[in-house]
Formats: sequence, C-alpha cells, structure tokens
Amino acid sequence: MASNEEELKPYLITDPQEMSARIDELRRQGKKIGLVPTMGALHLGHLSLAIAAKNECDVTVVSDFVNPTQFAPGEDYDKYPRTLNADISLLSKIGTDFVFAPSPDAMYPRGFDATVHVGGVSKLLEGRFRPTHFDGVCLVVLKLFNITRADIAYFGQKDYQQVQVVKKMVEDLNVPIQIDMRPIIRERDGLAMSSRNQYLSDEERKESLVLNRALEKAEELVRGGERESSVICDAMRQIIETAKDATIDYIHIGDPKSLVEMERVSGDVVVLLAVRIGTTRLIDNRLIERK
Amino acid sequence: MASNEEELKPYLITDPQEMSARIDELRRQGKKIGLVPTMGALHLGHLSLAIAAKNECDVTVVSDFVNPTQFAPGEDYDKYPRTLNADISLLSKIGTDFVFAPSPDAMYPRGFDATVHVGGVSKLLEGRFRPTHFDGVCLVVLKLFNITRADIAYFGQKDYQQVQVVKKMVEDLNVPIQIDMRPIIRERDGLAMSSRNQYLSDEERKESLVLNRALEKAEELVRGGERESSVICDAMRQIIETAKDATIDYIHIGDPKSLVEMERVSGDVVVLLAVRIGTTRLIDNRLIERK
Repeated sequence: MASNEEELKPYLITDPQEMSARIDELRRQGKKIGLVPTMGALHLGHLSLAIAAKNECDVTVVSDFVNPTQFAPGEDYDKYPRTLNADISLLSKIGTDFVFAPSPDAMYPRGFDATVHVGGVSKLLEGRFRPTHFDGVCLVVLKLFNITRADIAYFGQKDYQQVQVVKKMVEDLNVPIQIDMRPIIRERDGLAMSSRNQYLSDEERKESLVLNRALEKAEELVRGGERESSVICDAMRQIIETAKDATIDYIHIGDPKSLVEMERVSGDVVVLLAVRIGTTRLIDNRLIERK
Repeated sequence: MASNEEELKPYLITDPQEMSARIDELRRQGKKIGLVPTMGALHLGHLSLAIAAKNECDVTVVSDFVNPTQFAPGEDYDKYPRTLNADISLLSKIGTDFVFAPSPDAMYPRGFDATVHVGGVSKLLEGRFRPTHFDGVCLVVLKLFNITRADIAYFGQKDYQQVQVVKKMVEDLNVPIQIDMRPIIRERDGLAMSSRNQYLSDEERKESLVLNRALEKAEELVRGGERESSVICDAMRQIIETAKDATIDYIHIGDPKSLVEMERVSGDVVVLLAVRIGTTRLIDNRLIERK
C-alpha cells in the first residue's frame, strides 16, 4: 500500500451508519474484520489487543467510546479520561485501519429504548458491586458487534468477568463473532495496566502493588499444593492489608467459566479481586491453569 | 440446477450451529440471504413471504419454530398447531432452500439466561394484554437474525405491532438486517389468514368477519373525511358487537410507526384491533395511507 495512504491511518469515523457502510464494502471484498472495543485512554494493554487484531485480520477497527450505560450514577463517567487525539496517534504507529469514536447521542439517540441482560455469570462479583454495569457492557458491545460485523473481537483478561459475560451473551444470542481474550499487560512493577491507574496518587500507586502480590501468593500456594480456598484468600488478605489505604471489595476463587465460587481448588481456577486504594477502585485477576 | 437437487429442497436443519455453518459458506460465496421467521402451521400469508424472499434473495431460509418465550403461562403454547411435514411439503413447491426447525432445547439450552427488551412501541396494545410477549419475540428474532445472518427478513403486516417492535430493536441495537413488511393475505371472505383461525368453530368463523368489516368501515370513514378517532372507533365497535361471541380487547387508531394514539386523524394512520371470538383471540389491522 502507498505510504501516503498508510499515513492517513487510522481513519476516524464517528457516525455508526458510515462505519457500517464501510464495513459492508470491506465484507463484500471478503475481508476479515477484527474489533477492539475500548473506552479510549489507550495504554499498552489496549495496544496489545490492536496488534493481535492487526496480525490476524485484514481490517482492524478500534472503538473508542466512553459508554455511559455501563456507569452508575456517582461512578467516574464524567472524570473518565478522554484522550482521542493521543489514542489516534498511538494507533497510527501500529497500522490500525479505523478508529470508531461515536458520540453518546449517536449510540443512544433520542427515543432509544432497548436493554440486553445476561444472567448467570453477570450476577457475581462486579455484578454485586455494580448492579447495572454488565447490562451496559452487553448493550454497547452488542451494538459495536452489529455495527462492525467483526469476525473476531479482542478483549483483555484484565476485565476477566466482563469477557465471560460477553462470551455468555454471544453464546445465548448466537452472535456470529469469535471472542478472543488476551493476557493482562502489567507495568514493570506488576500493576495491571488500567486507564484508571492515573487516578492514583504517588503513595497510592505504591500501595496498589499489593493486588498483584496477593495474586502471585495465591498462585504460589496453589502450585505448592494448597487446596483450601479460605487459606489462600486469608493469605491474600494479609498482603493487601499491608496497604493502609486499601479496602477489599472481594477476593474470589472460582471456576474459570462460570466464576462460581470453589471452596476447594480442583482443576483450573481463576482468582479475582477488587480493591479500593483510597477512592480508586482497581480490579485484577490470575488464571491458574494446571496441566 | 439439476432437478434432482431441486427435489431435495427444502433442506431441513434443526441444529443452530449447522445452520450457521451453512450460512457462513453461502455468505463467503457472496449470496444474499432472505429469512422468513414463522411458527410453522404455514398458510398463504407465510407462503407470500417465502415467495417474496425467493424472488429477491439468492438463498431463502424459513424458520419454523413455536417459540416458548413469547407465550405467557395459560396461553396456547401447548395447543399451537405443529405441522412441520406439511410445512416442508408446501415450501418444496416454491423452492425454499432451507427450513430451520430447531427444538426448544437447541434454542434455549440448559443455562440459557439472556433477555432483550425494547421499550416504546412494545408497551402499547398487545404489550398491555400480553406483557411478556414482545420480549420473547425480540429474543427469538434476534437469535434467528444472528444464526442466519440474513440480509432481509420478511414479516407479515398481520402482526403490525410486532413488525414495528422488531424494526425498533433493529434500529436500537444496530442489527445489520433489512426488515420488509408484506401485506396481509385474507381469506376470500376477508378474514386475515392466521394459524389460530383453525381454533374457531363454524359459528365463530362466521362471526370473525366483523374484524375486517370494522376495518373496512374505518377506512371508508377516513376516506370520506371523518377525522374524529372516537367517531371511527364507535362505528367499528357497533359492527363488532353484532357478533354475539365477540369481546373487544382494543380498537386503536395510531401513528403508523410509534403506534401512539391519535385523537384526530391526520396524515397516515394505522387502525389496529384485537377481538376475542369465544376463546380465540384474533388481531387485524389496516394501514390507511393518504397521498
């Protein structure tokens, strides 16, 4: 492709109908479409997904949309970082084809009145602390899947429960898309990358390391033969409580697909946690697979 | 195409994954897919849709599935007529390519737990008398759209409100499909064709003619210049009440898209009614478009 054309990438689209029309054209040419749904404020975690999409698909779409329906009143919708120009600049370096950045009004126009709800795995953990969150996620993700008609959508393992909820929605609604979960990308010191990390003060940033340390401890115990979830959770809690501003929302050991709590570890498990450091809520997890 | 192959049509598929796989193959060949969602018990109304699909698309799928989620407890789910062999025989005469007839368990397997809700137009009329009906319709229709990835789906005007609800869902969820509404097909004496007409006794069958007569009267009045909806509804009510076993659920004059009630007729209107004849509930409607 001419370097001129490359330089114009990614092409910014804000209108859902224009996005659909471009995709229609590309699908008629037999192109394989990869979608990376994001709320912008891109970091290396998102970029790793966009790179995977670029490697495996003919056309990559990164959506960049802070979705109001997945925030509850009082959450951080207003202060959530919006950095579209910087996002586009980052994506231009890896050859992303389209950035889809609609306005809230374009996604939820006057008279909009639809809801999508997936039960089961959405009710636990984040579903308890943020009861409307996954309905909002399912709604926007389904809309994005339909607008982009992607073959594959890439999600980060950081939002582990979200990925399971989306997979369940895809299964229950027969959505013709493949969901690809990619590993968590961490800072050098172990903190899982998140757009919300920038809310942390210097002191809180140091304290936030207890999340990953607790997960490392959990893996160490499981690999060492510990089977009692309560023993593992206690050890994690002790580590997290060394941070003076930390408040634990949950520590959970569950089945990797249903997330149903396991009192005794057997087979593969996922360990998930949500911890508030000061006023910033962080989540992290570790999948422990056994050969 | 060899006549041998024609004779094998329609091809019966019961497994959603097999249906999706066949469609994937056809889409890769650039085929245009037409879907006619039905609950089976096919009559000429359904066949007119299947013929339209055949004329306009490369591949026609007729789904034949009595969808449990759109029936409330106490409604006629159990006694709803199931005539798959006769349906297939009818469709073989018009060259339908696929009949998709999944079992309830294939559509709603163990652990299934998703709901789709569209507000607005779904709340009126049928939505009041059958509060869970349109959620069930939206759910199954969305699943069928996803399984068949159809370009166009054909619906009969007989279920006018259903078509508006499905259109609203398609709009709000950005489903990549075109919804095509086709005219009501009537018996010679004017009764709108319906799989439920077979519930009527001979006497009730005669009485059922009041529905279409009332709609004809409404059109006559509007074309004659009457603008007061209450006057039109009263005239319709008088006609319907000549049938001794008739109970009116509603007579409604509304906006053709939102169905919002219009006290005075202006521009295009739709007249909708639901009447029980004995224990059989019938619906009918007439779209009055003015040049």
